[in-house]
Amino acid sequence: MLSVEEARERILAQFSPLPAEDVPLAQALGRVLAADAIAQEQLPPFANSAMDGYAVRAGDTLGASEASPRRLRLAGEVPAGRVYAGTVNAGETVRILTGAPLPDGADAVLQQELTRAGDGWIEFLSEAPTGNNVRAAGDDIAPGALLAAAGMEIGPAEIALLAAAGIHPVRVMRRPRVAILSTGDELAPAGEPLRPGQIRESNGPYLVAAVLRAGGDPVHLGIARDREDDLRAKLSAAQDADLALTSGGVSVGDYDLVKQILEEQGTMNFWRVRMRPGKPLAFGLLGGTPLLGLPGNPVSAAVTFELFGRPAIRRLLGCREVERPTIEVVLEGEDIERADRRHFVRARLESRGGTLIARTTGAQGSHLISSLQGASCLLVIMEGEGVVRQGDMVSALLLNDALPWGNA
Amino acid sequence: MLSVEEARERILAQFSPLPAEDVPLAQALGRVLAADAIAQEQLPPFANSAMDGYAVRAGDTLGASEASPRRLRLAGEVPAGRVYAGTVNAGETVRILTGAPLPDGADAVLQQELTRAGDGWIEFLSEAPTGNNVRAAGDDIAPGALLAAAGMEIGPAEIALLAAAGIHPVRVMRRPRVAILSTGDELAPAGEPLRPGQIRESNGPYLVAAVLRAGGDPVHLGIARDREDDLRAKLSAAQDADLALTSGGVSVGDYDLVKQILEEQGTMNFWRVRMRPGKPLAFGLLGGTPLLGLPGNPVSAAVTFELFGRPAIRRLLGCREVERPTIEVVLEGEDIERADRRHFVRARLESRGGTLIARTTGAQGSHLISSLQGASCLLVIMEGEGVVRQGDMVSALLLNDALPWGNA
Repeated sequence: MLSVEEARERILAQFSPLPAEDVPLAQALGRVLAADAIAQEQLPPFANSAMDGYAVRAGDTLGASEASPRRLRLAGEVPAGRVYAGTVNAGETVRILTGAPLPDGADAVLQQELTRAGDGWIEFLSEAPTGNNVRAAGDDIAPGALLAAAGMEIGPAEIALLAAAGIHPVRVMRRPRVAILSTGDELAPAGEPLRPGQIRESNGPYLVAAVLRAGGDPVHLGIARDREDDLRAKLSAAQDADLALTSGGVSVGDYDLVKQILEEQGTMNFWRVRMRPGKPLAFGLLGGTPLLGLPGNPVSAAVTFELFGRPAIRRLLGCREVERPTIEVVLEGEDIERADRRHFVRARLESRGGTLIARTTGAQGSHLISSLQGASCLLVIMEGEGVVRQGDMVSALLLNDALPWGNA
Repeated sequence: MLSVEEARERILAQFSPLPAEDVPLAQALGRVLAADAIAQEQLPPFANSAMDGYAVRAGDTLGASEASPRRLRLAGEVPAGRVYAGTVNAGETVRILTGAPLPDGADAVLQQELTRAGDGWIEFLSEAPTGNNVRAAGDDIAPGALLAAAGMEIGPAEIALLAAAGIHPVRVMRRPRVAILSTGDELAPAGEPLRPGQIRESNGPYLVAAVLRAGGDPVHLGIARDREDDLRAKLSAAQDADLALTSGGVSVGDYDLVKQILEEQGTMNFWRVRMRPGKPLAFGLLGGTPLLGLPGNPVSAAVTFELFGRPAIRRLLGCREVERPTIEVVLEGEDIERADRRHFVRARLESRGGTLIARTTGAQGSHLISSLQGASCLLVIMEGEGVVRQGDMVSALLLNDALPWGNA
């Protein structure tokens, strides 16, 4: 049986980044950058005023105060979006609005609250030193600055940066096509009545949602019955996919046909991983398409998708980090025994006084879909002997998409 | 000037939850539940086998061992998805596959690895105590169990739970329609060349992305020029929106027309909040539509959206918690001075040995869009005197959507 690390290595070795494509900036949210986004323009593009006030030569305001104001001739006005046609000469000032380009000749702005206006003149009640209320060109973003790195997911802040820097369209990775097939005679699709002996299909809907959140483009192929012809027919629709995910049919039973088809008609790379839940995990190639055969138990399917399926999708997307962060947290609530297989325990995290604390979601049977309820991490209980006790530090693999900390 | 708390209260008082609507489960990801999702069925619906093996009356295996096997008559087979028609009588066993309903009469399953098969009989090499390898009906979810509470956002785990419990369609809150309008003569839309004195519009694209992430349905109305007729015409398209967001035009300048229109033609609820960035924030009603006039500086717009716009959208969505969690973190890297306005400092979080550590993203000018880069929280520096020093605990408002801890 493979270790979790060996299985992950063998899977990731079969995937490499997909081609890039251009999308309008308005459609780039959630996509992954295909190349470093480099600023071509500086931001701001020109020196401009941080305030509504008066542009001036700093030297003309030397010594100005409430008691001894400096009176300057009002030569004109420059609102945001316009350019002052002339030059601010000695003894002159120009009305300037926030964001407007600093006129030639001027090197400072005094906010209007510190001035007094008269008929054709402005009195400065305070000095405006050189650079006062002036935002220098390139102050925010210099040309050539890295706005966001290749392999990074585009969130609202990146949208703002790319928009401000004029990067449009945006070069992003093509979304991986992920075919999803549930298997088993016992599965009833959503909206149909349960026949005796049936349960509802939940792995398909779960995987569609999880693939979407991972940045993939899911196609649900439905449910294959426990007959080789049906399974083969349904799997043939996965031949154009970048990844096929099945659930069920990979254990030791007589009807475990996914495993059988992969062995007989494809190339089985491995089967079974030393972990709990999720031991019966099959991976191989079928007609050139990588096929990850997840176990049928809902929790096993969810955990193995997280550990192996999501990283494969992130590799296809060219992400730098294909895995979510693992952090150290303090265990609370109950002790957890180690075993000869690595155990991934569903848990909730909370922050208390700067410390992260984890409590399990309760009973952890691999058929207990309720153990996923509110889970925000998987506690990683390494193989071995003994017990992880309350108060001990334990590793936690975060389950959510956006993280409250950087990956740096 | 209002405090942040007063401003938030006044804003939230103007919003109440929108009507609900039904969507297919396959379209429910990311939506907010309109009512508690209660299990109508138990899960599993029937007692079933956790293993591939043999169903049996536990009493018939008493004393079985490798040395002294118990031989029972093989009476039939029950795969997953079928129901065994007969009853398992004393002296009999039935082949059973994982997930198949336990046949009448049987009360235990022995996994096949602990059996030996012959011609019409099976030898049990170990005892199978009552309940062995049997998953009881309702073990996972009891009828009437709360699967997910009203006001909760539906993620992949909730999709799995709702699917497994047969909840389809799903009753969710209608997505709030949010009209977004940027204002200013200096703004150039994406894809158009910059004229002298212009900068690129970034607030519109940012707000579209942030509204989407907040669960709203954004409509970008474009850019209004600094003329009353243009602004009024563009704002008229917002009359069917549940919320209108503008950026720019709310300061003290001669061209701050959003503020002027709200005062003259609508009802100004308040203007200006004791915070940095974001002081010039206007809120009121225009033709019955709540209008939140965000400042024009990109960082001010982002921070005030986060503090006031997002909570309004979450209130419209009926979310229990309209705000994201604020947690305690340790400041590192530099001291931060307190001031008479509350300061929201962009920072990155990381986890080190179970402790959360924050470092600012660098220079914090409200025009420095680069200060949003990689920010995962806003450090909340309360009004007052003195300095928050490195190593001090400080409150951090998380900026990401999914959280690695529960809201419990």
